[in-house]
Amino acid sequence: MTDINLTLKEVRRLAFDCLLANGCDQANAEAAADNITMAERDGYQSHGLFRLPAFVVSLRNGKVNGKAVPKIDTLAPGVIRINGDKGIVALAHQRSRKALINRAREQGIAIAALTDIFHMAALWPDVEPLAEQGLCAIAMTSSRSFVAPAGGVRPLFGTNPLAFAWPRKDAPPVVFDQAVSVMARGEVQIAARDDHALPAGVGLDAGGNPTTDPQAVLDGVMLPFGGYKGSSIALMVEMLAAGLIGQPFSPEISAASNNDGGPELGGQVIIALDPDRFGDKEGWRDHCESFFEEMLSQDGVRLPGQRRHAQRETALANGIEIPETLHKEILDLSSA
Amino acid sequence: MTDINLTLKEVRRLAFDCLLANGCDQANAEAAADNITMAERDGYQSHGLFRLPAFVVSLRNGKVNGKAVPKIDTLAPGVIRINGDKGIVALAHQRSRKALINRAREQGIAIAALTDIFHMAALWPDVEPLAEQGLCAIAMTSSRSFVAPAGGVRPLFGTNPLAFAWPRKDAPPVVFDQAVSVMARGEVQIAARDDHALPAGVGLDAGGNPTTDPQAVLDGVMLPFGGYKGSSIALMVEMLAAGLIGQPFSPEISAASNNDGGPELGGQVIIALDPDRFGDKEGWRDHCESFFEEMLSQDGVRLPGQRRHAQRETALANGIEIPETLHKEILDLSSA
Repeated sequence: MTDINLTLKEVRRLAFDCLLANGCDQANAEAAADNITMAERDGYQSHGLFRLPAFVVSLRNGKVNGKAVPKIDTLAPGVIRINGDKGIVALAHQRSRKALINRAREQGIAIAALTDIFHMAALWPDVEPLAEQGLCAIAMTSSRSFVAPAGGVRPLFGTNPLAFAWPRKDAPPVVFDQAVSVMARGEVQIAARDDHALPAGVGLDAGGNPTTDPQAVLDGVMLPFGGYKGSSIALMVEMLAAGLIGQPFSPEISAASNNDGGPELGGQVIIALDPDRFGDKEGWRDHCESFFEEMLSQDGVRLPGQRRHAQRETALANGIEIPETLHKEILDLSSA
Repeated sequence: MTDINLTLKEVRRLAFDCLLANGCDQANAEAAADNITMAERDGYQSHGLFRLPAFVVSLRNGKVNGKAVPKIDTLAPGVIRINGDKGIVALAHQRSRKALINRAREQGIAIAALTDIFHMAALWPDVEPLAEQGLCAIAMTSSRSFVAPAGGVRPLFGTNPLAFAWPRKDAPPVVFDQAVSVMARGEVQIAARDDHALPAGVGLDAGGNPTTDPQAVLDGVMLPFGGYKGSSIALMVEMLAAGLIGQPFSPEISAASNNDGGPELGGQVIIALDPDRFGDKEGWRDHCESFFEEMLSQDGVRLPGQRRHAQRETALANGIEIPETLHKEILDLSSA
């Protein structure tokens, strides 16, 4: 497979033109292109241009509203709801971020409930900008049912990612973004394509038996990380990203899917906290740095996000590589 | 080992008398005795009367303030701080619960920061009462360093439990309460006492090598559940229960310990959310019940908390059993 090199500006242009050519208005195309560019910049190819063709399918068949106008309501002093108007989630985030930051600074803690949005991006781009503004942020979203609850053998939970960001003093934020499945679904798909066996514990076949065959797992069910403890985290994500805010649980997302390979309509929450409002305004940054220092004093230990931020430096200097076939596919979709 | 049977009233009386005889005032003794009784009632022996002798040690040596007067401050509209005055955490919870509930109902989301408290109880008793009032609650606390970060071989994180409670329609709340270590430290201690090998993956010896020898793990380090994903959860707990609220991180708790076997001074947070304030006031309870029904339709799947609630029914009807030696030890401590 031949790769081609693109600058981040070229990545953004490629994504923007393709989205604009397929039914997005300027604002939606810009926001989604920014999000895709962030993913490529930080080495998250699986959430970058790779996802664009699937978005195009759902824009063309009318599932995703390319001209969405997100609407913000204040439901309580600490709660804002952003109805995404059935658009790609990126614009809903861009339009509401300032409101969430202001709420968190005023209230100490606040939550954004995003509804009627199509999420197929990583979650870290939703929390990292808040930490860059000095806030702590926690985000969760549900997805189609792929993961068995502890003790079960059939899909119930989505891959239900949980992302967390914490601001640092003179460094990029600490950020993690992790699915509740042992392995990302995309990795299982790649293993199936390349005919590689999976490690034990990733999933069960359709009969509920442990298997290392990736296709059998795709036809069966993925397992939560850490057994019943990961299953509990998955349940928490369902309750907050669906039950709390009147959005579909993972099985409802699956049932409503048109199976076009594109994103699925659902909800997301972001909790933001302002450490300046918790009684240690002068001390918390140095206090936390001392802990990070202790953590990094162990060989082999990284702060979550460090690898991604290193990758970013490389991409800013040298651009990124994408398969020539993907580049051609996107150009074709942009001119069709 | 001979057990004796006690009614829950007798459990509470036993704990109360012992606490009162060892320096607690009426209010602190009642709150802590209630907490211990809840643990025994729900089958959490490890957090019940079993812990009492260690509390007595710390009350007698003056580490724990038996006459603590918790003080509540409002730091922001969504943030209350409860300074526990170096007392057992139970009274701080009892005194502040109503304020947190009111804040959550008014703001939609609120957080209680508990500082200068001694926590050696389970976390579910801190969140379940909030869910019984119709709120969702999330609690976290840090502890002494026992758990290695992903990639590391030395203790950094505490066992850092995370508890979650969600209200149900006509049933006890869904509640989980889980440490970030693969296995509870108490279970490893019991395996060491009984000379049983551990399952693989629980911990490393002091040289950083995997071992199934429980004593080697106690002398070495415990591992987080689910590898780097559990390690991330542990980090989140450190940031919220320590960094955010100006309380000690786990290594600081270890460093400050007088190693008397009793509880350690530290912090805790509880986030409370009112589902009625998120735009689906009429629908959320039935919507969530439909999800629980789907979850329970799989053989072998339980809702977190179900086993504990079943145990409660048994204890209310038949009382509970404790070792006669423990009963005698507590009586001796109460009359000394």
